[in-house]
Amino acid sequence: MSEKQNPPKRAVVLLSGGLDSATTLLMAQAQGFSCYCLSFDYGQRHRLEIQFAAALARQHGADHKIVTVDIGGFGGSALTDMGIDVPVAEAPGIPVTYVPARNTVFLAYALAYAEVLEALDIFIGVNAVDYSGYPDCRPAFIEAFETMANLATRIGVEGAHLTIHTPLIALSKEAIIQAGQALGVDYAMTVSCYQLDSEGAACGVCDSCRIRRTGFERAGIEDPTRYANIGS
Amino acid sequence: MSEKQNPPKRAVVLLSGGLDSATTLLMAQAQGFSCYCLSFDYGQRHRLEIQFAAALARQHGADHKIVTVDIGGFGGSALTDMGIDVPVAEAPGIPVTYVPARNTVFLAYALAYAEVLEALDIFIGVNAVDYSGYPDCRPAFIEAFETMANLATRIGVEGAHLTIHTPLIALSKEAIIQAGQALGVDYAMTVSCYQLDSEGAACGVCDSCRIRRTGFERAGIEDPTRYANIGS
Repeated sequence: MSEKQNPPKRAVVLLSGGLDSATTLLMAQAQGFSCYCLSFDYGQRHRLEIQFAAALARQHGADHKIVTVDIGGFGGSALTDMGIDVPVAEAPGIPVTYVPARNTVFLAYALAYAEVLEALDIFIGVNAVDYSGYPDCRPAFIEAFETMANLATRIGVEGAHLTIHTPLIALSKEAIIQAGQALGVDYAMTVSCYQLDSEGAACGVCDSCRIRRTGFERAGIEDPTRYANIGS
Repeated sequence: MSEKQNPPKRAVVLLSGGLDSATTLLMAQAQGFSCYCLSFDYGQRHRLEIQFAAALARQHGADHKIVTVDIGGFGGSALTDMGIDVPVAEAPGIPVTYVPARNTVFLAYALAYAEVLEALDIFIGVNAVDYSGYPDCRPAFIEAFETMANLATRIGVEGAHLTIHTPLIALSKEAIIQAGQALGVDYAMTVSCYQLDSEGAACGVCDSCRIRRTGFERAGIEDPTRYANIGS
């Protein structure tokens, strides 16, 4: 796919183990970047997604690092606080699965890593179309983070420019899946469900499962996900 | 000093164990805030500063939390990488003691914590006068972070406004020490040195020691620091 430059430019890629970031990684590689992936262990309900991220990075020859992040200890989200139930129906406003300032914390780490690597490019698979209504997935947030990042660091002071790439931000879930399929993403190695069961089967009914299932249906591509509740 | 509101507003205060953040905590309390302090264990050369921060918070009745942060593992700074020497003379440009994106990472955590606490105020003791030339201490960085923070979170979406307070940003070290003294900061319970010895004595010659010593001299206040190299 890509004609690699010599030496290839480095990029930091946030890799969650989900569908979107897997697609983002392959897009970054297709642009010729040598990719340094970061996954976060932040007290999320299941850690299988981190194993998926590690396997995916390995499969595609990308560097991979897992960072333990202590935001789960602050509480305040159904994704990290076992006292809050994951909802199974859409509700107005910001959902309880929102993790306070999660993308800010993740991008801050990516920025620190980029500075050390002397990388000028960070990729994040946020999406503002088929998403869960999180404030830190909006284009205005990403633009503000990029502005801040260039003021925060040696990079900006020395006259270079760091770019936050969001190749999925304006794509429908269907378009993401089609693009990823074309690049060779194995979606069986990605997980979207907020509440996998102990055998790793997706619930099929949480917000994230519903968006994923609809995306595959509309893309006309078979969903390789093993769902517990809907018998597929 | 302060007439406390009922109930007092909550603020997150970044507390490093150093002189500046100790002064900042007492300034926030003097403004009537109920303070939730955050200290970070990020692989810095000595951990004594975290113990000082905990003791100071306790002394002043503030809540205190220590968060382990994995940026030291990225390397790239003399403060976290034992392979890089701490310099003892001024040099042009950004010094090797700069920790990549440190204040961005710390403020990102403060933002997450503020969201969970429903606090609209974060205090950070950055200073753009007598400082070490770090890019993430500049007013433009703080302003950009505040803009980003309001786009990143539930706070901004719901029409409130989060403020990053930097009460020290335009003060000389001398003025900071005088203000802190007036508020009752016990500077014996703060540490500035980048390379304390095993008995906790400051080196007296690193960038941070030199700025501290000069500040006390100019303020006409006795420096309670125990220095190893200069016999005081």
